Amino acid sequence: MNIIRYPERSEWKEILKRSALHTEDIRDAVNTIINKVRTEGDRAIIAYEEQFDKVKLESLAVDETEFKEAENMIAPELKEAIRQASANIRTFHAAQRFESKKIETTPGVTCWQKAVAIEKVGLYVPGGTAPLFSTVLMLAIPAQIAGCKEIVLCSPPGQKGKIHPAILYAARMAGVKKVFKAGGVQAIAAMAYGTESIPKVYKIFGPGNQYVTVAKQQVSLREVAIDMPAGPSEVAVLADGTASPVYVASDLLSQAEHGADSQAILITTSEQLLEKTKAEVERQLATLPRKALTELSLRSSKLILVKDLAEAIDMVNEYAPEHLIIETQNYRDVAEQIVNAGSVFMGPYAPESAGDYASGTNHTLPTNGYAKAYSGVSLDSFIRKITFQEITKEGIRRLGPAIQILAANEQLDAHKNAVTVRLD
Amino acid sequence: MNIIRYPERSEWKEILKRSALHTEDIRDAVNTIINKVRTEGDRAIIAYEEQFDKVKLESLAVDETEFKEAENMIAPELKEAIRQASANIRTFHAAQRFESKKIETTPGVTCWQKAVAIEKVGLYVPGGTAPLFSTVLMLAIPAQIAGCKEIVLCSPPGQKGKIHPAILYAARMAGVKKVFKAGGVQAIAAMAYGTESIPKVYKIFGPGNQYVTVAKQQVSLREVAIDMPAGPSEVAVLADGTASPVYVASDLLSQAEHGADSQAILITTSEQLLEKTKAEVERQLATLPRKALTELSLRSSKLILVKDLAEAIDMVNEYAPEHLIIETQNYRDVAEQIVNAGSVFMGPYAPESAGDYASGTNHTLPTNGYAKAYSGVSLDSFIRKITFQEITKEGIRRLGPAIQILAANEQLDAHKNAVTVRLD
Repeated sequence: MNIIRYPERSEWKEILKRSALHTEDIRDAVNTIINKVRTEGDRAIIAYEEQFDKVKLESLAVDETEFKEAENMIAPELKEAIRQASANIRTFHAAQRFESKKIETTPGVTCWQKAVAIEKVGLYVPGGTAPLFSTVLMLAIPAQIAGCKEIVLCSPPGQKGKIHPAILYAARMAGVKKVFKAGGVQAIAAMAYGTESIPKVYKIFGPGNQYVTVAKQQVSLREVAIDMPAGPSEVAVLADGTASPVYVASDLLSQAEHGADSQAILITTSEQLLEKTKAEVERQLATLPRKALTELSLRSSKLILVKDLAEAIDMVNEYAPEHLIIETQNYRDVAEQIVNAGSVFMGPYAPESAGDYASGTNHTLPTNGYAKAYSGVSLDSFIRKITFQEITKEGIRRLGPAIQILAANEQLDAHKNAVTVRLD
Repeated sequence: MNIIRYPERSEWKEILKRSALHTEDIRDAVNTIINKVRTEGDRAIIAYEEQFDKVKLESLAVDETEFKEAENMIAPELKEAIRQASANIRTFHAAQRFESKKIETTPGVTCWQKAVAIEKVGLYVPGGTAPLFSTVLMLAIPAQIAGCKEIVLCSPPGQKGKIHPAILYAARMAGVKKVFKAGGVQAIAAMAYGTESIPKVYKIFGPGNQYVTVAKQQVSLREVAIDMPAGPSEVAVLADGTASPVYVASDLLSQAEHGADSQAILITTSEQLLEKTKAEVERQLATLPRKALTELSLRSSKLILVKDLAEAIDMVNEYAPEHLIIETQNYRDVAEQIVNAGSVFMGPYAPESAGDYASGTNHTLPTNGYAKAYSGVSLDSFIRKITFQEITKEGIRRLGPAIQILAANEQLDAHKNAVTVRLD
């Protein structure tokens, strides 16, 4: 871990820089796969699954037998934990439902917004060593609450041609009926364009490696919407001398274990906490199974000492972390001053893992500083707000003359005329 | 205008197709400009303004004298119309403020969302023949209500090196302090990367030609967020035999005058209305100053006769128009069934021009079928919702065991450990 003491503001930009994403280099390779899926459909998916996931598939859709098998393979304690997490995610996202209000802006002119679910959404759940069933819950539960009619989920099969049972169990539990064996770029392309088996959707959600990220970007240029641009996961811990170095170290480590490119940063006002945390990271690291990977990621992590809390808050807002954990004395006051972050964890008993799994908040969050412009996934991500307006005869009489003047000044006479014919 | 009677559902896709956007062809040209602005800053902008807008600029920022001059040039009746429109836009968007609710998902686990303004936003207002001061109001007023700290506006100067006075007047009225003379790709690049004069922003809004559209897409791949992908403007009118052909024709024409690539579609259940509308379009067209341009755009417009209202509604939802005008007997019932549209105008006295200028709804809306996945611009577009969670000792005691099980099953032991240290 890199220790930085009292950096000048002019140095912040360099210190807080993320590792560059080399997305341009792989764009052509990604577009080749996208185009092949677009023209050849299922056949291309099956070929790419053989090439990349080393599995020969007969068909792409997960059938009822596989769902049943999966359910039987899940331990009761995991089922109960998934149920508890789901209930909290459901409670929090259901409370985000939009309530429409009719506003009379001028007598006879009534305007309102109505929330309508995106009809078809696609969820991507990566494979790899860890089965990310928590991501299934985080995406499928709000999609279901929003009322999306068609929820499609793609995830790469393991070497036996099956999707991990915990992913299938979570999907079924969250109301997803259509699950397909497809990973990487080919899965994104399939949901963007549709194939014989996999339906085309209007918006694609979910994490993935840099190939998936680029594929989502490429299809978002024309075909579909995407949840947000993605980058490696990251946490900032803002702590003062009252924080527990044991907790802080565990939080930094839980971010670091995600992968070599993920970033964990401590911003603290206390030299003592910094030193103790450093020692504690080393102590806890020794006990972790993913030690080698975590160690690699810690190399780019930083422990930063700043002169006071105000500076610490400024630095957090400049960094705009995906996750922010505040372990300070008056953590509520500090939280009030945060303007750039994906999700904020307040106080000593709120580790990032709580939000990653089970507190109810969504774990799909803006990385790479995107928190300055993007929100994390929420119920909003699965709806659109359509505006409506109803205008009475009195309404157009009152509003019409202004519209005529405005339209005439923009030299749009037919716009003016649409009012004139109604006023006559 | 093309008349299509009782098309089969299998033909809908072809009938409702938009004209293709050839964005790939100009991508390299756009990226060249972007890169030059990125490396050379103001100097590049000044050079491009000379090349494209035929104007030699000394400086880019609009100064106080120019704002004052502009204000003096605006007729009192236009000022009053702008004031009236602004008041309605302000009323409707202010009513969209997000009210945060704290949700206790589990005893001791409290989660909430907080709306925070995007700190720096950039608004692009195209030049060309018509000064789009209404776009200034539609973007700057919600930015101001949201509380964006820095609102930057770029618009190309006319041949005398000045921005149209109505744009400057509207900008000042909506609280924009920083206005710059820059148009097209160079303006988008300036706001994405920042130059000596023009500040970098986090999100860029506003319409433009295909070059601006591609520039926004390109910078959105890495640097900034954008409001939404853009395409030519469009309207669908859904009408039955009770509708006035005079009103319907005026609505189709007010869309058609936007440009040769804009699309106006009538979907009706009444043969008689169709025929009368056709005749009325020709009659009204003859009186319009933009006759030639409007005629060109009408060539790709369509009058479609369908068998009943249910089919008409299905067709609208399949088309997902930017603007939808419903002129039918029970227009409220019909409006209830609309799921894909940008903005909906209900009843005989609600022409699209009302929403374009003054009713209060936003006129920055999803075109090109994007209404299936995107909302129009609203107060939401200028904020992010950050999630917060506060967990007490009791909260982690109740939630911790589930998190431990879930993390262990995703093979993320450091995630589990962050809970374990807190339960001990």
